[in-house]
Amino acid sequence: MATPRFKQLRRSYGFDEVAIVPGDVTINPEQTNIDLKLGDFTFGIPVLASAMDAVVDVSFAILMNQLGGLAVLNLDGIQTRYDNPREVLAEIAQVSGAEVTPLLQKVYSQPIKENLISERIQAIKQSGAVCAVSAAPANAKRFAPIASEARADIFVVQATVTSARHLSKSSRGLIFPELVKSVTMPVIVGNCVSYSACLELMQTGISAILVGVGPGAACTTREVLGVGVPQITATIDCAAARDQYHKESGRYVPIITDGGFRKGGDLCKAVAAGADAVMIGSIFAQTKEAPGRGYHWGMSQQHPALPRGTRIKVGTTDTLAQILFGPTSVTDGSQNLIGALRTAMGICGAATIQEMHRAEMVIAPAISTEGKSWQLSQA
Amino acid sequence: MATPRFKQLRRSYGFDEVAIVPGDVTINPEQTNIDLKLGDFTFGIPVLASAMDAVVDVSFAILMNQLGGLAVLNLDGIQTRYDNPREVLAEIAQVSGAEVTPLLQKVYSQPIKENLISERIQAIKQSGAVCAVSAAPANAKRFAPIASEARADIFVVQATVTSARHLSKSSRGLIFPELVKSVTMPVIVGNCVSYSACLELMQTGISAILVGVGPGAACTTREVLGVGVPQITATIDCAAARDQYHKESGRYVPIITDGGFRKGGDLCKAVAAGADAVMIGSIFAQTKEAPGRGYHWGMSQQHPALPRGTRIKVGTTDTLAQILFGPTSVTDGSQNLIGALRTAMGICGAATIQEMHRAEMVIAPAISTEGKSWQLSQA
Amino acid sequence: MATPRFKQLRRSYGFDEVAIVPGDVTINPEQTNIDLKLGDFTFGIPVLASAMDAVVDVSFAILMNQLGGLAVLNLDGIQTRYDNPREVLAEIAQVSGAEVTPLLQKVYSQPIKENLISERIQAIKQSGAVCAVSAAPANAKRFAPIASEARADIFVVQATVTSARHLSKSSRGLIFPELVKSVTMPVIVGNCVSYSACLELMQTGISAILVGVGPGAACTTREVLGVGVPQITATIDCAAARDQYHKESGRYVPIITDGGFRKGGDLCKAVAAGADAVMIGSIFAQTKEAPGRGYHWGMSQQHPALPRGTRIKVGTTDTLAQILFGPTSVTDGSQNLIGALRTAMGICGAATIQEMHRAEMVIAPAISTEGKSWQLSQA
Amino acid sequence: MATPRFKQLRRSYGFDEVAIVPGDVTINPEQTNIDLKLGDFTFGIPVLASAMDAVVDVSFAILMNQLGGLAVLNLDGIQTRYDNPREVLAEIAQVSGAEVTPLLQKVYSQPIKENLISERIQAIKQSGAVCAVSAAPANAKRFAPIASEARADIFVVQATVTSARHLSKSSRGLIFPELVKSVTMPVIVGNCVSYSACLELMQTGISAILVGVGPGAACTTREVLGVGVPQITATIDCAAARDQYHKESGRYVPIITDGGFRKGGDLCKAVAAGADAVMIGSIFAQTKEAPGRGYHWGMSQQHPALPRGTRIKVGTTDTLAQILFGPTSVTDGSQNLIGALRTAMGICGAATIQEMHRAEMVIAPAISTEGKSWQLSQA
Repeated sequence: MATPRFKQLRRSYGFDEVAIVPGDVTINPEQTNIDLKLGDFTFGIPVLASAMDAVVDVSFAILMNQLGGLAVLNLDGIQTRYDNPREVLAEIAQVSGAEVTPLLQKVYSQPIKENLISERIQAIKQSGAVCAVSAAPANAKRFAPIASEARADIFVVQATVTSARHLSKSSRGLIFPELVKSVTMPVIVGNCVSYSACLELMQTGISAILVGVGPGAACTTREVLGVGVPQITATIDCAAARDQYHKESGRYVPIITDGGFRKGGDLCKAVAAGADAVMIGSIFAQTKEAPGRGYHWGMSQQHPALPRGTRIKVGTTDTLAQILFGPTSVTDGSQNLIGALRTAMGICGAATIQEMHRAEMVIAPAISTEGKSWQLSQA
Repeated sequence: MATPRFKQLRRSYGFDEVAIVPGDVTINPEQTNIDLKLGDFTFGIPVLASAMDAVVDVSFAILMNQLGGLAVLNLDGIQTRYDNPREVLAEIAQVSGAEVTPLLQKVYSQPIKENLISERIQAIKQSGAVCAVSAAPANAKRFAPIASEARADIFVVQATVTSARHLSKSSRGLIFPELVKSVTMPVIVGNCVSYSACLELMQTGISAILVGVGPGAACTTREVLGVGVPQITATIDCAAARDQYHKESGRYVPIITDGGFRKGGDLCKAVAAGADAVMIGSIFAQTKEAPGRGYHWGMSQQHPALPRGTRIKVGTTDTLAQILFGPTSVTDGSQNLIGALRTAMGICGAATIQEMHRAEMVIAPAISTEGKSWQLSQA
Repeated sequence: MATPRFKQLRRSYGFDEVAIVPGDVTINPEQTNIDLKLGDFTFGIPVLASAMDAVVDVSFAILMNQLGGLAVLNLDGIQTRYDNPREVLAEIAQVSGAEVTPLLQKVYSQPIKENLISERIQAIKQSGAVCAVSAAPANAKRFAPIASEARADIFVVQATVTSARHLSKSSRGLIFPELVKSVTMPVIVGNCVSYSACLELMQTGISAILVGVGPGAACTTREVLGVGVPQITATIDCAAARDQYHKESGRYVPIITDGGFRKGGDLCKAVAAGADAVMIGSIFAQTKEAPGRGYHWGMSQQHPALPRGTRIKVGTTDTLAQILFGPTSVTDGSQNLIGALRTAMGICGAATIQEMHRAEMVIAPAISTEGKSWQLSQA
Repeated sequence: MATPRFKQLRRSYGFDEVAIVPGDVTINPEQTNIDLKLGDFTFGIPVLASAMDAVVDVSFAILMNQLGGLAVLNLDGIQTRYDNPREVLAEIAQVSGAEVTPLLQKVYSQPIKENLISERIQAIKQSGAVCAVSAAPANAKRFAPIASEARADIFVVQATVTSARHLSKSSRGLIFPELVKSVTMPVIVGNCVSYSACLELMQTGISAILVGVGPGAACTTREVLGVGVPQITATIDCAAARDQYHKESGRYVPIITDGGFRKGGDLCKAVAAGADAVMIGSIFAQTKEAPGRGYHWGMSQQHPALPRGTRIKVGTTDTLAQILFGPTSVTDGSQNLIGALRTAMGICGAATIQEMHRAEMVIAPAISTEGKSWQLSQA
């Protein structure tokens, strides 16, 4: 008689459950190189701004690129549905919590205007900035030529979960090798969280992968669907796929950990876990330049039948430049993210992002409130 | 000299401690088939309503079946002890928390009237609905012929823990093979939580198993008795028993995870862990159609000497149809449970419930309050 | 070159981290036998009351034995230092929290009167009850003959930690084999928490072992000294020692899990982990008959230089008989402890305490507040 | 094809997650020897006071040595930048929480005066006390001759993380073998947390190691940088390095666990994990003699661009003598730290610190608030 088979569960870890171990060698933070290469582009900082309507509009995209990073403009959102997106964003910031999901469902039910796609891209390009745009898989085949025509530089295809093999009876799905061949720009695809799904996506010829399902501050995917993998484990698994694919193909496809960051230490941990870059939403929604006016909401919150996200009040703290580079008097890790990354790399003796991938990490649950209780009475 | 033997403890997991990993393939949610087969019956959705007095009365049972699922009417409860159960239910909803357990002890000390068993069943059958009824093991032999006579379709035998071998000096216990033989309808038995107990129950010839001891929102079995197994581990173990029994006997006996659900993600996790269906209590007690009037209480709360349950105020949120199928603007996973299940299956590339049993899962502790603290200030 | 050696840590578990798995067989609770044998005595319930001044005085000891259990009178405490202990107990109940430790330090600095030892024992014996008394190791040699003379039945030697080999330069320590030989009554010794320490103590010829360091509600040993082992692991380890010693010597030495109980489920878990009996302090301090008047304090709180305990307000809930046997309308597991134990044994198919030792257990963290949040709004 | 490689994470533990197991032998606390040897110095208690400005000034250093321990004076801080440090300390204690980091950034931007280095050392030496001073790695080469000239006894080089191999393009870094050769006093270096980094530092010829990155109450390194290892694991790893180095070289280099202590039990756990001594900050900042006036702040809080620390209000509880030696009526473990250590050693049968290193430990999560909830209503 056969042995019974029990389903096996593997332990996974998020940012709050791990810590980085200092290295046997240390280096000066100033000597670290944190460049990110995407296709033929090189960015001075390995940071992307999320394709979310509360984070990126045309002027934010330009500023982000001027500061060394890359912002992705959402082609499925408010910027391409409304001639005057500021009015709509202002309304979203004003309604009460009870009214916001119905409002978002209505706002996002308006049709996307193809001319606005071109206009937004051209506005970014005219500033001299690198222009990255995103579309949902269902819109990717239609929007890619328009974006290409308008001279966008990078094309992102993004959904909660994207696989190399999507089965649909009603329509012929998006075929990534065809998309990659049809556009001349690098294609970034997401999101995925597992070794095998990531490997399959890389094999389609795309240029980078977004890693993360369910971790974002404005996302309730894990509550609603039960689906999601904590970011450290997701990053470790996809980094293993990247290294394996690199060994097999000779091609290095960067992975970008997307979502769930709350402070500088989280960025450092993502990179130590294997990320080549990070994509940030809610922290940037707090900048003075963010279009969300102190609010942030999930990309699936507007789903007409099963919304999976919440609008959250993140407040407005400081400029994007300040949050990225400091200097600061804030001590909780929410500012000078790049300074934190360089300092952590110095402590680990890592001169490059790829050397930081080799830093040792431990499982170390977040310091409890009790353990730091004196801080509660901080004067 | 013999080596000392230390008792070994196995780690177990509940809903909040696991998450589902997206698949390498994805499919459209609309293409998923979520049918449940019980005996010769096929139900369009794999959801049962608990045999609890705050959840199911005659009209709720009819509605549930019209919506594709199955509700179980409790033959040991208020519906069969009182000609006018509404009055009693109203009184339970009105007394204070301190008075409720003595009141329940009194309410449930009234005798069960056999004529009411017939009347309730016939009322359900007259609507054309499939009729399922439940009895405690002590009452099963007496009530089964009455239910059979009244043309009930499915007979459920349910206690906190039911085993295939119950030892009693004072009386000859319930023998399941005899019961199965004596009634013509499918027999569902519960509850159990372990591989071996589940396997033994299946070998008695019954048609389905209820899985779960101690997880329900209104249940304090684990506090009072120390007994209970978290639902993910219980489901995994009983699913292994089902698969083993299927291999040995060729007969597929569905397992129904019963209790502890708080949101759509929990249902998805139960199915990914191996459940063929779920049985829901407190979420349905919140529907506008529930007899409990915004309250819910445990099935063991009326025990005269050792009550194990509490009345909880669950409130009234929406209609049963809305909670099952949406559409909704609620983003916390408490509505559109079926939409959530189909979406999660699509993300896992699972076209059927049995394919969903193969979805990968990880141990991933619930996102901490701290991690989502911005939501606390949600406007 | 030798491999470096890292200190290894073993995982341990407390009551809140485990649960009992129902059995494949079930039996009627009424058919369970829960007798405890200590020396030639047989007790109807496997429950001892702690030798703590807030729990046991002469009348409590008599009542406890009448109800089937055994209470231990503390010979190092208030009862043997004061002719009128009630006055002192009243004062302890009246002072503020800030004043209580200095007061206890003063109260316990008064000398023990040997005549009071005899008087208290005789008062218990005159009622016909079995009389158990306790002394600290330092006092054991002196008090044992007095207790013997006064016809005490059971002699308990108890300290935070007691080992079979205590090293002291200044005096010749207590030698257990000598003590056992010198008194004609059974000797119970505690506390210990590990396999080897327990085995060594059993080899001295004593009659039972108290298991537990640091778990009690009124004990801060773990905070102050860092010392302690959670009760489930301590019980499992000492049960392995008992079984090993039984195999080697043919003598069965019961182990009594002492401290940390908060509800009926905890008792059931201790027995499932291997305990032959439990010793209860704070739950009994809540009875109407307890001398502590709604307060409870630790046995090390009176230490003149390093007090390790706190006075806690436990309140007064019900009679000892009610808490032990019910019936009750309380659903949180704090009443009808014996009913809970018999019911859990029935669910596990255990007809005796020793059969309950074989019940399967799982590691299952306590149900979180979040998971049961509806209860917070319980009306 | 090669097997994919996944980054492995090791579990680590902090004070709150472990407990000490009592020994099979016990001894009288008075018979324990807790001497600490550093170079040719022997200290009666294995306790150092942190080189932090809220903890150690000249008079505190003298008192600490009189009581048997060693305090380290910070040469990079307020004491050597200001002729009248008391004024500055008073100002820090007076500003609001929002103003304190900018103030500290300003206070610590003033130049260090070399004459003050000599003056502070001489003041300590004139009292007859052993004088230990600390410098950051960048200042060590410059300050060491001055300290040597002024007859300091022990030289500490301390940064968040210090490695034996620091890489810098701009300057020739600190070479520890050269430093050790150039000064005649023992050199203590820190901080480190891993086996290999600790082993490399010992091989440079230094006399002791400080263990700990990120655990202190006033430190936010782990939040800001993601870097840190909980103290029990860090101590176990560095103790393994010490023992390995001892085996290889015959030289015993003590390790000093630095930071994160909140109560006596934490000290006992550090020693059981392998520490030869402990370095204490925030607990000593609470003494009546501490210069911080009831406040404490991190050593990295004054960083001009990326501050990593917070000022915390610790309050003022009692004298240093009282906190070290009692006697006390405080029962939470915050006083009589040495009494606690000796008592724990007695319970473990450890006559010396090195015997205490062999005490068994278990992983035992901190007693939950729920488990001790009665204490909340402590009168």
